[in-house]
Amino acid sequence: MAGYDYDLFVIGGGSGGVRAARVAAALGKRVAIAEEYRFGGTCVIRGCVPKKLYVYASQFPEHFADAAGYGWTVPEASFDWLTLVANKDKEIARLEAIYEKNVEGAGGETFHSRAVLVDQHAIYLTAEDRTVSADQILIATGGRPAPHPALSGHEYCIFSNEAFDLKELPKTIMIEGGGYIAVEFANIFHGLGVDTTLVYRGQEILSRFDMDLRRSLHETMEKKGIRILTHSISEGVRKTPGGRLDVLLSSGQTLTVDQVMLAIGRIPNTENMGLEGVGIELGKTGAIIVDQYSRTNIDNIWAIGDVTHRVQLTPVAIYEAMCFIETAFKDNPTAPDHDTIPTAVFSQPEIGTVGLSEDDAIKRYADVEIYRASFRPMRHTLSGRDEKMLMKLVVDGSTRKVLGAHILGPDAGEMAQLLGIPLKAGLTKDDFDRTMAVHPTAAEELVTMYKPTYRVKNGERV
Amino acid sequence: MAGYDYDLFVIGGGSGGVRAARVAAALGKRVAIAEEYRFGGTCVIRGCVPKKLYVYASQFPEHFADAAGYGWTVPEASFDWLTLVANKDKEIARLEAIYEKNVEGAGGETFHSRAVLVDQHAIYLTAEDRTVSADQILIATGGRPAPHPALSGHEYCIFSNEAFDLKELPKTIMIEGGGYIAVEFANIFHGLGVDTTLVYRGQEILSRFDMDLRRSLHETMEKKGIRILTHSISEGVRKTPGGRLDVLLSSGQTLTVDQVMLAIGRIPNTENMGLEGVGIELGKTGAIIVDQYSRTNIDNIWAIGDVTHRVQLTPVAIYEAMCFIETAFKDNPTAPDHDTIPTAVFSQPEIGTVGLSEDDAIKRYADVEIYRASFRPMRHTLSGRDEKMLMKLVVDGSTRKVLGAHILGPDAGEMAQLLGIPLKAGLTKDDFDRTMAVHPTAAEELVTMYKPTYRVKNGERV
Repeated sequence: MAGYDYDLFVIGGGSGGVRAARVAAALGKRVAIAEEYRFGGTCVIRGCVPKKLYVYASQFPEHFADAAGYGWTVPEASFDWLTLVANKDKEIARLEAIYEKNVEGAGGETFHSRAVLVDQHAIYLTAEDRTVSADQILIATGGRPAPHPALSGHEYCIFSNEAFDLKELPKTIMIEGGGYIAVEFANIFHGLGVDTTLVYRGQEILSRFDMDLRRSLHETMEKKGIRILTHSISEGVRKTPGGRLDVLLSSGQTLTVDQVMLAIGRIPNTENMGLEGVGIELGKTGAIIVDQYSRTNIDNIWAIGDVTHRVQLTPVAIYEAMCFIETAFKDNPTAPDHDTIPTAVFSQPEIGTVGLSEDDAIKRYADVEIYRASFRPMRHTLSGRDEKMLMKLVVDGSTRKVLGAHILGPDAGEMAQLLGIPLKAGLTKDDFDRTMAVHPTAAEELVTMYKPTYRVKNGERV
Repeated sequence: MAGYDYDLFVIGGGSGGVRAARVAAALGKRVAIAEEYRFGGTCVIRGCVPKKLYVYASQFPEHFADAAGYGWTVPEASFDWLTLVANKDKEIARLEAIYEKNVEGAGGETFHSRAVLVDQHAIYLTAEDRTVSADQILIATGGRPAPHPALSGHEYCIFSNEAFDLKELPKTIMIEGGGYIAVEFANIFHGLGVDTTLVYRGQEILSRFDMDLRRSLHETMEKKGIRILTHSISEGVRKTPGGRLDVLLSSGQTLTVDQVMLAIGRIPNTENMGLEGVGIELGKTGAIIVDQYSRTNIDNIWAIGDVTHRVQLTPVAIYEAMCFIETAFKDNPTAPDHDTIPTAVFSQPEIGTVGLSEDDAIKRYADVEIYRASFRPMRHTLSGRDEKMLMKLVVDGSTRKVLGAHILGPDAGEMAQLLGIPLKAGLTKDDFDRTMAVHPTAAEELVTMYKPTYRVKNGERV
């Protein structure tokens, strides 16, 4: 081991890689990490963080409008896109510096370079034009938006990466996709005043979420003025003489817009980094195949985070990093547990969810109780905003265990985070019922739904 | 029993009384309820509901200011107090009607009258000038702001009841008290642009809450521009020739303000309703003394809610009503459990709390772990608002049980509601740690504080 330059070399400076590097370095290991773009990765640089900042930005017009019912007269506000972009840039640069400094502060070395595997223990740093060696190697190179080369005119389209940094805010945009990225950006652009159309090939946006949430969010978005075309695919994009874009849809309809954003999936970053040469096994989508401990088929090479295409979430990558450290450096083999992961979609209204959807629960349990409340959040009694909040608990009728909790409405993400605790611990509906309400809150609905709205026995609603 | 007009007569149409009447009627009991003022009680008419609406109203100026960092230019907004009052009135009238209708819909009878006990089974309805009889009687008359007759000039002062309906918004106000009502109103008035001074005789506002929260809220309120004078009492109020009020404080200082609001406590409504004649035992403060099942010393007369001065919260009154129904009408004696009740203070920032404060935990447990995070909420990275969020978990070091959770910051009330579930169920810090984070949320801090900030062993911080 002393024969290598490093005990651990991490490729990729996102949330997962940085966490692994920092913690290993803090344990006294000789650690280096290489990042070819910017430390912070998808989450900090072009994902969670800028996304949520843009969500905040896009919510202000509703605040301004809602104020009237509370006695406020607000003259028309104006918005400057480039101010938002610049302020966002300042904040992510600050976070980026923290990420890098944290590794260095713990004693790790950082490289601003692409890193290519030469052999099982050797890494070539392109920007440095030299090769270093390491005992253990961790690949945490993340993913990126899936391109769409089959689409004629795809070169005119942008992806989420570019959407954050457009030179100007488009007047009209078409977003293709039905996943959370497409949905979040549709709400952001709409909130900022952009005429927005969401085009999705499926039947309903946000597959894999609870159908109630999907339908209710769809309705609410349409009510706000977002056009949603399901069962639709764009079949070609053409530049118009005026510099706009004509999108031909599968329906035969043509949309003329200023920007087309594709959010049709994400793919792992596994190209041109020497994986094939070393013999690392990849899956069909190009993701690195790992065992339950995040180990690849080469026993000193590991992979965590989006590049493994397990669960593509920042906290999961960080958690996989912590498990990797336990396994590789603390003689405590720890397999990450990917069960019952709470998540949020920062749509407007927000989605917060943990555990099984109604449909999934029905498939697995013979007797399912559904508790469901739909109500106008208190703040909208005076604002007059016609937007309902939806809360739903999915309960195993035989054991009373709460299998799923699904929320659509303000602060749903915060709620999902905390509902994650009782659901992960396997608490029952009785534990919910025993909890005193906090009034007036929205979340009190979750502990005061005493009678099932309906039951589903052996797949039949009764 | 058939000899009485009613199986149950409820005195007081607040949250507790209405719930009991409605549920008993739905069980097929002959039920009547009398309310001398307005159905809905403190919560709906002059407590929780209008308070939270006013909190929303008072938060808009911060939204307007925060928008700048997100690229928005918002011209100066103006506020009309009477619009807010009128819209609030409309909403509470709507809720009031629902409360009354719910009782009637379940088959109960409603009286708009004061009800005075004549004997153990007879109630005189003053507005109807007649006496009715009932097998069981439930007193749920609530409470009201404590007057302060010893204060010279107290007749110039208002209480929370009047604060909601002032003919005009004062330019300056002094609020006396350090409890949640005083603190909430100080934030409301300040947010609406009123120059606000909070005067409190104690050392720190919000006694009985965790000291960290108390201090941090105090600091944040002062930073916003609310004047807080602790160790202070008003010793006299005098009308000035210009129609304003001079308040002489114990410090020797005189404050000149437009309104003085006293929020120095609440007392139970037990006068002039025949309780003494029937021999119902009252405590020192005038509250009705009840046993664990909410039964008074007269065995067919019960009392729930604020009039019993146990825990003065709407959900507790409702819960006591449900337990009373079980005990009195379903042959299932059920004592309300008042342990581990989550609560919120709708200050700005908000407080959400459940379980033991650090100080209380230290008194009861030999080994206490404190997990504490203080950070700037993400929305304030771009808004530039200098306001920190505080999160704190109090854990029993020997069993790992989470004893208390305390939050200061946006949505703290919603968070306290959901933290109530694992705390009531006695979950451990390990259960929190096993929960995956939801990023980016504020609540994720609560599941990612892996190492104690400090420990307190046998009262000594180590």
